[in-house]
Amino acid sequence: MAQASQATIGSSEFDRDTAVTRRSEGVYDIDLSAGWTIISAVNGGYLLAVLGRALADALPHPDPFTISAHYLTASRPGPAVVRTDVVRTGRTLSTGQASLFQYDDQGRETERIRVLASYGDLGALPDDVRTTALPPALPPMEQCFGPEDGPAPVDGSSAITERLMLKLDPATLGWALGAPSGKGEMRAWFGLKDGRDADPLSLLLAVDALPPTAFELGISGWVPTVELTVHVRCRPAPGPLRVSITTRNLAGGFLEEDAEVWDSADRLVAQSRQLARVRLR
Amino acid sequence: MAQASQATIGSSEFDRDTAVTRRSEGVYDIDLSAGWTIISAVNGGYLLAVLGRALADALPHPDPFTISAHYLTASRPGPAVVRTDVVRTGRTLSTGQASLFQYDDQGRETERIRVLASYGDLGALPDDVRTTALPPALPPMEQCFGPEDGPAPVDGSSAITERLMLKLDPATLGWALGAPSGKGEMRAWFGLKDGRDADPLSLLLAVDALPPTAFELGISGWVPTVELTVHVRCRPAPGPLRVSITTRNLAGGFLEEDAEVWDSADRLVAQSRQLARVRLR
Repeated sequence: MAQASQATIGSSEFDRDTAVTRRSEGVYDIDLSAGWTIISAVNGGYLLAVLGRALADALPHPDPFTISAHYLTASRPGPAVVRTDVVRTGRTLSTGQASLFQYDDQGRETERIRVLASYGDLGALPDDVRTTALPPALPPMEQCFGPEDGPAPVDGSSAITERLMLKLDPATLGWALGAPSGKGEMRAWFGLKDGRDADPLSLLLAVDALPPTAFELGISGWVPTVELTVHVRCRPAPGPLRVSITTRNLAGGFLEEDAEVWDSADRLVAQSRQLARVRLR
Repeated sequence: MAQASQATIGSSEFDRDTAVTRRSEGVYDIDLSAGWTIISAVNGGYLLAVLGRALADALPHPDPFTISAHYLTASRPGPAVVRTDVVRTGRTLSTGQASLFQYDDQGRETERIRVLASYGDLGALPDDVRTTALPPALPPMEQCFGPEDGPAPVDGSSAITERLMLKLDPATLGWALGAPSGKGEMRAWFGLKDGRDADPLSLLLAVDALPPTAFELGISGWVPTVELTVHVRCRPAPGPLRVSITTRNLAGGFLEEDAEVWDSADRLVAQSRQLARVRLR
């Protein structure tokens, strides 16, 4: 495990596993790591960070302000190629598109995810903040629980949990004890286990790294993401993040997951919403 | 004004003004109407409905389940072309991309908006509903106020207000009286003035048709949309809609607008979030 000494932005396993290699203008190779899988699926937030990193290279601005991903087919660990397209460049914002492809048995490219994003420079924004949103009410970290505190609650691979510092609010842990609350809420302290601080790219992972709110609604099946949009609102301060996820409407076999990410300085650093499909098993 | 007799889905001015003409496979012409402008801007929800209509023709599924638009340059009334691309077709969902272009002074195509969307069939969804969200607390329509109840609150064109039945909750109307509440909330009864009932396409208009929440935050400048994502969750029942918009975080010159649309049967029919830029004047 990458738990040894404190990793930094750039030296962390997260950075190595999201690093893309430029093959030609706008085209990037990557080997998707098996380290970010849960059950048999590659985590959607990790994949979004890979695409986000390719776009940060392709566009003149460094930070994803808003990034929308449509998940087409399930990604597998292994080789992939990201093809980017610069849609528009402006003074404060630029917009790009990216697709991640893998290869089928015949070696043909199959599209996994398509993304549309507008990038800017978070460091260039003015300091005004007028927020009525409040940070999630989370117990202190030592009163929260991680996968290491109990038996593995899911079957199959849980590689990603070995790389995350995830401490769940006991109030949203009923599902793990066989008594889901019936409320579509999930809250946790979040970080990378190797101690790497958060940055805009790791926020793309943070919004999709908690157990699905569906577990607390008493649904134990797979909840694949159809679409995920993340707004990064502020460069996060060092220290653990608080992530709060809410589902208010489960209907017709679909649900939304709204995530908020707060940093140690009590700034709302990211908001996201995803539409996911409920697959009962 | 199109107020004469009750219009139906298909016969309304909204249908005529969003109708696209197929030029060739996946390519559609449209004349953007001046009837959906506010001040000098073509309404972003109207534009999204135009793109949504083109994608409904290009894809095998009829209804936008989730549609994400990145607004690149300001659209003007007049000729435009929509180019669509089928990304993936599946049994229950298909994904497409679309761009709207207009022509510059030299006749070159300039991209206005790019959209990524996943479509399905709302009519084919099961009936399960587990919603903890509550409809917005709105006074009865006769206690709410429309543009016709007072002097025009904005300078310039207000063509769109002549086509909408918009009755604003007095609790979110402080801005029109010079006394914004300081809360980022806007709520209204919504319909088309010609009496056309709502459908998934007009929901794309409904989420972006209220005055900006920024007005209630005491900001009177333009608030252009950077990105708007809409989830259509249910086919709306006939009758007026209730739209509730909330901004919880204004920071660094950007804000989010979260919209919920409820139908007359108390179903949450659409959710949206946009990232907008605050331009102080």
